[in-house]
Amino acid sequence: MSVRTTDPGELLAAARAGDRRSLARLLSIVEGTGPAARQVAALVHPLGGTASTVGITGAPGAGKSTLTSALVARLRADGEDVAVLAIDPTSPFTGGAILGDRVRMGDHALDEGVFIRSMATRGHLGGLSVAAPAAVRVLDAVGWPWVLLETVGVGQVEVEVAGAADTTVVVVNPGWGDSVQANKAGLLEIADVFVINKADRPGADETRRDLERMLDLTAADGWRPPVVATTAATGEGAPELWAAIRAHRDHLTSTGALTPRRAARVQDELVRIVAALLRERALATGGPALEDLSAEVAARRVDPWTAAEQLLDR
Amino acid sequence: MSVRTTDPGELLAAARAGDRRSLARLLSIVEGTGPAARQVAALVHPLGGTASTVGITGAPGAGKSTLTSALVARLRADGEDVAVLAIDPTSPFTGGAILGDRVRMGDHALDEGVFIRSMATRGHLGGLSVAAPAAVRVLDAVGWPWVLLETVGVGQVEVEVAGAADTTVVVVNPGWGDSVQANKAGLLEIADVFVINKADRPGADETRRDLERMLDLTAADGWRPPVVATTAATGEGAPELWAAIRAHRDHLTSTGALTPRRAARVQDELVRIVAALLRERALATGGPALEDLSAEVAARRVDPWTAAEQLLDR
Repeated sequence: MSVRTTDPGELLAAARAGDRRSLARLLSIVEGTGPAARQVAALVHPLGGTASTVGITGAPGAGKSTLTSALVARLRADGEDVAVLAIDPTSPFTGGAILGDRVRMGDHALDEGVFIRSMATRGHLGGLSVAAPAAVRVLDAVGWPWVLLETVGVGQVEVEVAGAADTTVVVVNPGWGDSVQANKAGLLEIADVFVINKADRPGADETRRDLERMLDLTAADGWRPPVVATTAATGEGAPELWAAIRAHRDHLTSTGALTPRRAARVQDELVRIVAALLRERALATGGPALEDLSAEVAARRVDPWTAAEQLLDR
Repeated sequence: MSVRTTDPGELLAAARAGDRRSLARLLSIVEGTGPAARQVAALVHPLGGTASTVGITGAPGAGKSTLTSALVARLRADGEDVAVLAIDPTSPFTGGAILGDRVRMGDHALDEGVFIRSMATRGHLGGLSVAAPAAVRVLDAVGWPWVLLETVGVGQVEVEVAGAADTTVVVVNPGWGDSVQANKAGLLEIADVFVINKADRPGADETRRDLERMLDLTAADGWRPPVVATTAATGEGAPELWAAIRAHRDHLTSTGALTPRRAARVQDELVRIVAALLRERALATGGPALEDLSAEVAARRVDPWTAAEQLLDR
């Protein structure tokens, strides 16, 4: 089946019937801006809510792509269908490397139970942190039960995107514990599962002890993030990681924590969309207030926070 | 001179008199949240406007830190004082590597004409894209004539931060041209100067031809970004890069382009601050509207864009 339409409703119907090209087109639409993106968002929104989302983040070189690929193989072995959204803001710089990652993921290219999509920073109003959840909702509405959000680049927005999944996996490597003192708190905040990847390297045991000690000090809210050792290149540890992800998923549903968690994530998203709308409206109307105030700030007559307050109070 | 006060006004006076510890404290304040950050912003704002800011961005491993260090040496040789703000959102993951970068910059550690500061993603309301311009204004107000914004990590926000400088330097390596087709437009948009670093490697000439061809196709608005070849590790090309940066700076001032450019950047910044304020207000008041709407969206009864519109119209 192939559909030549550009009508969002028809594309959605075709995608739900299994047409991958229609799905790809829907994703292109929500990655863009404009009324079509919102039309798709409104169409898919009531259809979703059943997909489990898993964010995978970590240092450059930690092996996130290889780990994602190993995890996909594990899900497939259990008969689970899975979509991968690779959040890839570095593509203007590192197209080659990422092409390499995609080739690695190419093991799954012919598998009908796997769907892979890279998402770069484009002109999206509001950026990746608005576009990525929109893409997840499309995949959800079309019926993908598992959506993995792999961050290829490392940056503030990308960590936020991975942290906004139902389950967030933070990937570290042996030796990591020594070098990072100040910022562990931020990782503890977003991690539901820790992975020590490249666990065949020296220092894995010490890294585990270090992580466990951190977790001992953190007040438990009913879920203590497990620490899983993997060697993604050989697939070792992938079953344990998959088990840890399912356990977290079960915890979220059995305790009723999933609903408030998702509502809290949506709250962040709404604020970002409001900001995008504000910018859009300001630009669409010629934005005299915004433009005038910007000139005042640039001329050092008003400071930015005061100007923003004025803007907000209009 | 050393000052024990925490009063922003006294810290500012001391920093302007040359006290580096007071400057460091002011930067810590604007990196944080709360009324003190805004107080500092209001104090420093009218004092600035004279610093030239240079953003330096590029792929991981392109040699941005080494290049920044070579450029600092070049500025110093010309008797220019220079501050470096290293935008470093990867620090939760790569503390070690960045420590290494800082050690390299350590050549300048004892030089009174150099000030180096790393800035990581912390709890800042609005993130690095709000915190970085605030820090630049402090350095500007204290009298640093050149501020280099080096992005250590690569992500959407970090590229935005570097792109918001008066002059933006985009660093690529030989061979880069082959692998990246789709996203060159984004780089062309922000680059005022292109650097081919590690130009002693094979493929440098081809990369230059490729860049020049791209630039041929771009409509000129009076400034054609020069392409400078460097080998940062040996310092080769640093004088030419410094000359290109000064030429761009002269272009901005002589054509009067600096003022509208800065106003346009401020416009983006204001929208981000407004978003941060919106979030803060929503959270401070318990945000019933935001909370209720988030729950509605999470329950699939309203789609996010419609909810955001409703929020905005209240």
